[in-house]
Amino acid sequence: MMFEAKVTVRLKKGISDPEGVNTLKALRLLGFENVKNAQTTRMFNLMIDGKDKKTVQKDVEQMCQRLLTNPVVHVYEIEISEQK
Amino acid sequence: MMFEAKVTVRLKKGISDPEGVNTLKALRLLGFENVKNAQTTRMFNLMIDGKDKKTVQKDVEQMCQRLLTNPVVHVYEIEISEQK
Repeated sequence: MMFEAKVTVRLKKGISDPEGVNTLKALRLLGFENVKNAQTTRMFNLMIDGKDKKTVQKDVEQMCQRLLTNPVVHVYEIEISEQK
Repeated sequence: MMFEAKVTVRLKKGISDPEGVNTLKALRLLGFENVKNAQTTRMFNLMIDGKDKKTVQKDVEQMCQRLLTNPVVHVYEIEISEQK
């Protein structure tokens, strides 16, 4: 069965987000002074061939820990859905 | 009123996603051979002080066109929600 896994990778609270800070600065320079905060998030969409949802979930957690995220600075969310 | 705008920036169909391709390669090298495809998406979360939802939506469209996305390669989605 094919599953789609959406992995959302965010920075932990208190970790600075230079890309967000610079986006905010650039928006202000363009005249969008009503923007009060900007944060960036990365998402991975993976197509996975797996036995069942639980196995796929476990695999994706492994992928997050080994490659997709840095546990020192990131938190992540995993969303698995079956593809028809 | 404060609004939260979520901007999701994706690559257009047919535009190559080198980061996705390399993620896929790296996952396979780590032994996750059941991963069939990997794509990356970028998200911006903006906090905006605005009069109403419609005005904020217009502002965010302007931001997308002027800074956040490249219309040659990207498509984007905007989601606005009121903050309490």
